[in-house]
Amino acid sequence: MTGIFMSFEGPDGAGKTSVLKQLIPQLKEQTAPTLLLTREPGGDPISEAIRDVILDVKNVDMDARTEALLYAAARRQHLAETVLPALSQGDTVISDRFVDSSIAYQGAGRQIGTQAVADLNQFATDGLTPALTIYLDVPVKLGLERIQTQRQDDYDRLDREQVDFHERVHQAYLEIAKNNPNRVVTVDATQPLVQVVADCLQVIKTHYPQIFERK
Amino acid sequence: MTGIFMSFEGPDGAGKTSVLKQLIPQLKEQTAPTLLLTREPGGDPISEAIRDVILDVKNVDMDARTEALLYAAARRQHLAETVLPALSQGDTVISDRFVDSSIAYQGAGRQIGTQAVADLNQFATDGLTPALTIYLDVPVKLGLERIQTQRQDDYDRLDREQVDFHERVHQAYLEIAKNNPNRVVTVDATQPLVQVVADCLQVIKTHYPQIFERK
Repeated sequence: MTGIFMSFEGPDGAGKTSVLKQLIPQLKEQTAPTLLLTREPGGDPISEAIRDVILDVKNVDMDARTEALLYAAARRQHLAETVLPALSQGDTVISDRFVDSSIAYQGAGRQIGTQAVADLNQFATDGLTPALTIYLDVPVKLGLERIQTQRQDDYDRLDREQVDFHERVHQAYLEIAKNNPNRVVTVDATQPLVQVVADCLQVIKTHYPQIFERK
Repeated sequence: MTGIFMSFEGPDGAGKTSVLKQLIPQLKEQTAPTLLLTREPGGDPISEAIRDVILDVKNVDMDARTEALLYAAARRQHLAETVLPALSQGDTVISDRFVDSSIAYQGAGRQIGTQAVADLNQFATDGLTPALTIYLDVPVKLGLERIQTQRQDDYDRLDREQVDFHERVHQAYLEIAKNNPNRVVTVDATQPLVQVVADCLQVIKTHYPQIFERK
């Protein structure tokens, strides 16, 4: 396996999608290997079928562990069909969310246990871990205010339970960053978008100058 | 939780279905608690939707780990919706196959690792283990001959790969039985059906006289 595997992580309202939208064209212009931006479930028929089960509004009774297992199943299939083949041919793969999201949202947010969800995903990924994870950090209140503004709703309308959920997610991300200092680089996502994008680009340049040099 | 949870296990051709077909009416007649015979995925809409993904013939590219995760997800949902509520109201629940089948078929048969599949299912079941597992043992060759006869085909037409698969499954079952002497009782399934059924009934009577006494 020769390609570089990276993930982008962050709580709701961190601006991940906006950042990637600006960052990816710059990376494509400046780096040599083929660049694949991917997001689970990722388009293969099996992962999409699994996603349909997860998202089916009729499935209101879905158990939290069932959901975690289904996300892990979709992840596995997406890895097998898309990510691993790309990496093996030397592509750079950037995943918009990966295992850390499951640990933060399901393990901590839905309270089924961060270690249990980490172990489950160890099985799903067969140990594949991003070489670099850029974590876009934003305080819970600011992140949720951004989201609520996008939804043309007020932050104040969120109930206590929702805020607590996002507090647990944020806390889990901070712990993941603290416990994986060699893999996770935190970028301050309260900055203006253009600065966040510049910071991310700089982090990638620092870690992988070789993919820039080749061009 | 007050009900008793049992599972029936065995390799292909052990006669599990035939045994349960005769045993269940006898148990229903002789025992006091409501008896639920169940088989995963088990009828709830989410488990059935997951099964549809697993069995979809279009999904020929399904990775072995994806499949194991999907089976675990269906199991979890079936537990949450059907088995746990039944046990909590004092019913006796008999599951036609449970975690041991995943360990034997996926862990050993498909070679993704018995311990890994056990750990995965520990997450799915949140530690729920049958109090009693009746393992119907049959040598691989006899089991496969029975199956092939049912299919109006010859044992000799099985290729080496299929036989090896079933050898691994059988070996895994033997190890599970050996490693869990307090939970797993082996019944010789080479005997005539009526004797196998009688043996199973006797095992249950010995382990749980109280469910017979009440009647």
